[in-house]
Amino acid sequence: MRDLYAADIADIARGSAFLGSGGGGNPYMGQLMAEQALAKSGPLELVDVAELTGDAAVVPVAVMGTPTVFQERLLAGHEVRNAIEALASAVGRSPTHLMPVEIGGVNAMTPFAPAAEIGLPVVDGDLMGRAFPEMPMLLPVLAGLHVSPTALADDKGNVAIFDTIDMAWTERIARPCAVAMGGTAAVALRVFSAPELSRTMVKGSITLAQRLGRAIRLARESHTDPVEEARRTLGGVTIFRGKVSDVDREPADGFIRGHTVIDGTGSGAGTQLMLWFQNEYLCAARGSSVMATTPDLICVVGEEDAEPIPADVLRYGLRVAVVCASCDNRWRSPYGLELVGPEYFGYGFPYVPLPSH
Amino acid sequence: MRDLYAADIADIARGSAFLGSGGGGNPYMGQLMAEQALAKSGPLELVDVAELTGDAAVVPVAVMGTPTVFQERLLAGHEVRNAIEALASAVGRSPTHLMPVEIGGVNAMTPFAPAAEIGLPVVDGDLMGRAFPEMPMLLPVLAGLHVSPTALADDKGNVAIFDTIDMAWTERIARPCAVAMGGTAAVALRVFSAPELSRTMVKGSITLAQRLGRAIRLARESHTDPVEEARRTLGGVTIFRGKVSDVDREPADGFIRGHTVIDGTGSGAGTQLMLWFQNEYLCAARGSSVMATTPDLICVVGEEDAEPIPADVLRYGLRVAVVCASCDNRWRSPYGLELVGPEYFGYGFPYVPLPSH
Repeated sequence: MRDLYAADIADIARGSAFLGSGGGGNPYMGQLMAEQALAKSGPLELVDVAELTGDAAVVPVAVMGTPTVFQERLLAGHEVRNAIEALASAVGRSPTHLMPVEIGGVNAMTPFAPAAEIGLPVVDGDLMGRAFPEMPMLLPVLAGLHVSPTALADDKGNVAIFDTIDMAWTERIARPCAVAMGGTAAVALRVFSAPELSRTMVKGSITLAQRLGRAIRLARESHTDPVEEARRTLGGVTIFRGKVSDVDREPADGFIRGHTVIDGTGSGAGTQLMLWFQNEYLCAARGSSVMATTPDLICVVGEEDAEPIPADVLRYGLRVAVVCASCDNRWRSPYGLELVGPEYFGYGFPYVPLPSH
Repeated sequence: MRDLYAADIADIARGSAFLGSGGGGNPYMGQLMAEQALAKSGPLELVDVAELTGDAAVVPVAVMGTPTVFQERLLAGHEVRNAIEALASAVGRSPTHLMPVEIGGVNAMTPFAPAAEIGLPVVDGDLMGRAFPEMPMLLPVLAGLHVSPTALADDKGNVAIFDTIDMAWTERIARPCAVAMGGTAAVALRVFSAPELSRTMVKGSITLAQRLGRAIRLARESHTDPVEEARRTLGGVTIFRGKVSDVDREPADGFIRGHTVIDGTGSGAGTQLMLWFQNEYLCAARGSSVMATTPDLICVVGEEDAEPIPADVLRYGLRVAVVCASCDNRWRSPYGLELVGPEYFGYGFPYVPLPSH
């Protein structure tokens, strides 16, 4: 257990934007809300799953919807609390801890403000080890846990509880509801026990996000290369540097989909990297050579400052580096790749493991 | 209180198809399910609202979705019970009685099978006095009651609970969910107390449907005019007789919308009646003269047998009579017409009361 202060939030936000692989929404709005809440409440307890007792009731929270809507509509602040309360009322049990569903983007920030306001500790970790665009893409689903019910809440005071036969049905019936709620909704998943979490979560990913965000900040301050510091912290590989020469992007059914082309500079001059995204960056190819694919992390960052650039704000002319890192190993299993591999997303090639580095 | 037998169901189904004003789905599938359930359980108690005691907890039930989907997909039978159970669990209270949300079409049948299976009495009445296509079109909403939460259930075992700020939001976020559930879903509304029902429901409409269905049946058996017997039972007016010469119909967002043209016969020869529908028949005009509009009932029936013809099965060449009847008086108030008048449905003229007869 350690205390998390308002001053820690900025590093976590920067790191989680990185780990979001271009998706999960822009974390800076969530950062402001978390900083304000922690400034008011005092420090928050961040606990390891190993510290949880038998009566722990952990509720993972997130925001779902189109990232471009996240940008335009600030959360009113009470949506996540409303989703948590609706979930607690539906299952007849109050949460003892909150945690993020995914470590990417705004969703890494989602538990902090409600945890500070309600007075709950946050579990250090998440259920993906990155960000993914659909609800069934959870390690607990991969492990065979029945993840239901799920609560949705909007900014107007409407809540919905979905109790489904599987998470694919939750995705199918809850996403159009989130769209009808105005394009975005707060989400609270079912209550998890300590043993359930212990065997299915990605442990320590909030701390990893903070280390990553801090490494980038310190590199900027000391004028060393922030991209290289980020790569080293993640144990990843920088696959490309260049300038964005094309972006083709459109919103579709609560997602954004498209691709971008990056013209190489330096050692990559004369070559192009093509990146495909559906909320998250999902595949990278150099010419006909696939360099990286989902579920591995593909992060696009500013070449100078390693500032993460989400897929929804990528634009022509930006000078970027593309840093990739290995996903949680469980995603590389056959069922993992069935859930989140490139073929699931409709790309016509199988998973290509990251080149060794 | 009176006992309702399997043998009573056919008349109620015929009458409720008539009162459905072309919408509410075809009742004959619901009739079969209700007859089977009552044959197995024995008679059902049909009670007047005046007989309810202070601890009565009445849950109105229905099926929502596109009528054309009702035709193609038989309810598996457990959807309505699942919706009732989900609602009961959400509000922490078991229903003591069921009732239909609307008296039109399949929805008049909806409470019978679950009531027989669970062993609950049914309250004689409904919340519309006819059928309407959208969820906020309820007399309790007109009376200012907060109608929430609402439970939805599909045939696969998925349930959803919507707790909203008003019924317009329930319509907005629950309908896309029903569409995603496969086009149709069972609905259980909030629990109503006896006093709440007493001041907002339409009393005795199940008995009215049965009288209407019986009048049509007896007229057929005795070779008198079933259309005239139905008109007399309803206290309505037969505005047109003729042959369907055009039907323009399309499914849209969980509804069917369109219009039909009827070429007059007999005293109406040489004239045409135009009928517009959105699930229900909503407006009737003879040339430029508006004859009847929602919320009054517009019923299209076979000219010979007074068999009700829903808007989703109307077809070229049918010989029909159009019988209209006054709606519940509360719908004629300014707020009532705002909720269900012709202008709400996008028709460019105000409510025209039925011609006197």
